[in-house]
Parts: sequence; structure tokens; C-alpha cells
Amino acid sequence: MSGRFVTFEGLDGAGKTTQVRAVAEALVDLGIDVEMTREPGGTRLGERLRGLLLGDEPLIPDVELLLLFAARADHVETRIRPALERGAWVLCDRFTDASYAYQGGGRGIPAERISVLESWVQGELRPDLTIFLDLPVETSLARISGGLFQETRDRFEREHLEFFERVREAYLARCARRPERYRRIDGALDIPDVTRAILEALHAENGPGPARKAGAGRPERGRA
Amino acid sequence: MSGRFVTFEGLDGAGKTTQVRAVAEALVDLGIDVEMTREPGGTRLGERLRGLLLGDEPLIPDVELLLLFAARADHVETRIRPALERGAWVLCDRFTDASYAYQGGGRGIPAERISVLESWVQGELRPDLTIFLDLPVETSLARISGGLFQETRDRFEREHLEFFERVREAYLARCARRPERYRRIDGALDIPDVTRAILEALHAENGPGPARKAGAGRPERGRA
Repeated sequence: MSGRFVTFEGLDGAGKTTQVRAVAEALVDLGIDVEMTREPGGTRLGERLRGLLLGDEPLIPDVELLLLFAARADHVETRIRPALERGAWVLCDRFTDASYAYQGGGRGIPAERISVLESWVQGELRPDLTIFLDLPVETSLARISGGLFQETRDRFEREHLEFFERVREAYLARCARRPERYRRIDGALDIPDVTRAILEALHAENGPGPARKAGAGRPERGRA
Repeated sequence: MSGRFVTFEGLDGAGKTTQVRAVAEALVDLGIDVEMTREPGGTRLGERLRGLLLGDEPLIPDVELLLLFAARADHVETRIRPALERGAWVLCDRFTDASYAYQGGGRGIPAERISVLESWVQGELRPDLTIFLDLPVETSLARISGGLFQETRDRFEREHLEFFERVREAYLARCARRPERYRRIDGALDIPDVTRAILEALHAENGPGPARKAGAGRPERGRA
């Protein structure tokens, strides 16, 4: 497995989707094979389960957790591992940290239970780097409710403030525990500044990083 | 919890659905509150997941197992437990024994993994009685393929013979290990004979049995 596995985490409105796209573009410009994906989702089955998970019907926490890991098992086996094996950089909008944050911190499911499922479904696979786009809960909620399509907000987005405070705390705790794997970036910065900070983190994490790949790779690129 | 939880297991074609209905009718005639249900399914979410589970898209074994237990968690909490708590007899067409038989015996998932999910999702809840309608694999396959709608056969039914042999062996092993909870009944008998055998098993299991609940004079119903 020679690719890099980079996940993007954060509350809604933190800019994950925007940043995944911006970072992917920058990496593609450097000649890197990039696979953009998201959770829940990323596969046909996963997207169908996403519909159930973010739909209007309330779900029992255990049901939610098991559905998320069912979708994740499919995602890991049919998309993430194959992409990493061909050497791609996988940029994933949410991954297992979100389960620890939302189902663990938010809904109170014991972390040990999540950890058992993580091992079953992922084996040894963990992200090489996790970008946590941090935002105060109030800012997250203001960004979400400022949208034009408030009526389309999903179930998670309608949860109460305390829930999101617990989610954010869980994310922060995970960042603090494994500083080498997590990079907390202020999601309130301007979009280009956030992108720049993420690319710097990727550069640092990867040692010589994409920049060297680009340097060394330039001659090959446009080889004609 | 004062109801009885009775599950029906067996290969396809063994007559589970027919027998659940026949037994339910007999119990209702005795004045018993009966809840008939099935797995995967039994709830709105469960029936949607059933569509994915029995559909044409191949599923990774772990995905299958997690989806089954997600559906089961919903089923147990929103339907089975409430029914048992109001004193109903729950007759369920397949339950966790099917996971041990199909995903464990059939697909080779370790029983310990299934057992962990069983404990999470069910807590202490186990069927009071499990009726195993036993059928040689050849008979099961002949019954299935003898149907008019062969093209509608689901993914499980198309699995190969060896798979079903392993499934049956797993069922038989479970029956042998806990004879007080399992009752193996020959599914090749005539339908009314199978129904009679099941009602006798229910009578025996329940001590004085459903007959006593319905009235002192009734136990020998139909026997005279």
C-alpha cells in the first residue's frame, strides 16, 4: 500500500467538502493520483445507507453505529483499499473519527464498542493524517442555519447545541491524544488560508511531501 | 417481560412462513396475544435493509452481518421487546440462529464475532424456544427450484449446495448443544403434522402451556 490516506473531520459548516475539493485540485496539479470520497457513502451501498442515516426517521444509537460500520466495511474493501493499493491519495470527507465523535461523544456509545468495530472493519488501516477543521459550535450552527435551504437540513444538523459541544470535545480529545496523526486547523479562517494550512500539513506529514513528488515529478509530467 | 419468544429457523423451503402463520392462528384461537414477525425485517427500517440484504448486489460478509444486526437492533428494541412486555407471544420467522447458521456456518464468520453483536444488540434476550424445521439440502433446493418464479429467487437461494450443507450443519450443531431450547422438527412431514408437532413443543416448553392459559379443559384439544 503506497498511497496516503487523509481524512477530513469537523462539525457541519466547517468547510470539509470545500477543502477536500480544493486540496484534491492542488494535489492533482502536482501530478498525484487522487481519490475523493466521503462517509457515510463512497459506494453504491454506502450512499443508500447514507440516505437512511441522514433521513428523517429517528434511529436507535446502536442501529446508527452498525449501519455506519456496515457502510464503512463496504467503503474500505471496495474503494479505499484498492485506491491506496494503486498508490492514490485518498481524501475522505469524514471517517471513523466521526463515529467516535458523533456516536461516541455525541450519543454516548462507549468508545470500546466503536473500537471493536473499527478493528473488525479496518484491520490495521488508519488514516495517515486527519485534518480536523475546528469551529466553535455556535459558528457551525450559524453557518448551517444561514443557508437558504434550512428545510433540507438533515437529522444530525438539527441536534441540539450540547450534542455538538460533546462532538467537538470528542474531536479535540482525539487530536490531543495523537498529535502526530491529527492536525487541528481553524475552520473560521478564509477558505484559501485553510487550504494552504492543509497543504502545509500534508507536506510536513509526508516528509518531503507532495512538493518533492512535484519537484521530482515535474520532468515526468508532460513528458512529451 | 411475560410473553414468550419463539423463533422459527430452517433452510428455505422448510415451511417456516407457513408454520408461523398456522401456529399463530392456533394460538389466537386459544386467546393468546400473538405478534408475528420476521427477519431480516419486522420494522420499516428492517424491511428496507431486507431489500438490500436479499437484493442482487453481492455483499461482503462483514457488511451483511453488520446490516443484519443493525436491522435486528431496531427489531428488538422497537417491536420484539415491546410485544413481550405487553405479554404477547412473539413468533419470529428467523432470528439470530440464522446469523450463526448463514453468516457463521455458511460464510465462515467466526462465531465469537456474531456472539459479540448478539450481546450488544439483544442484551440477555434469547428465544424461549427455537423451532428448527429440518430438511435435507436437496429437498430444500428442490422445493425452491420447483416454484413457478425461479427468476425471482434471491441471492441466498442461489448459493451453492455446499454452502447450504454448512448452514444446516450449523443449525444442527446449535440444536444439539442446547436441546432444552431447540426443537428439531422434520420439515418434510405434511404441513398439519408439522404444525401439530410445533404446538406440542410449545405446550411442553411452556409447562402447562398455551392450553392452560386458554382454559383448563383445552389441553387435549383436537386429540379426542
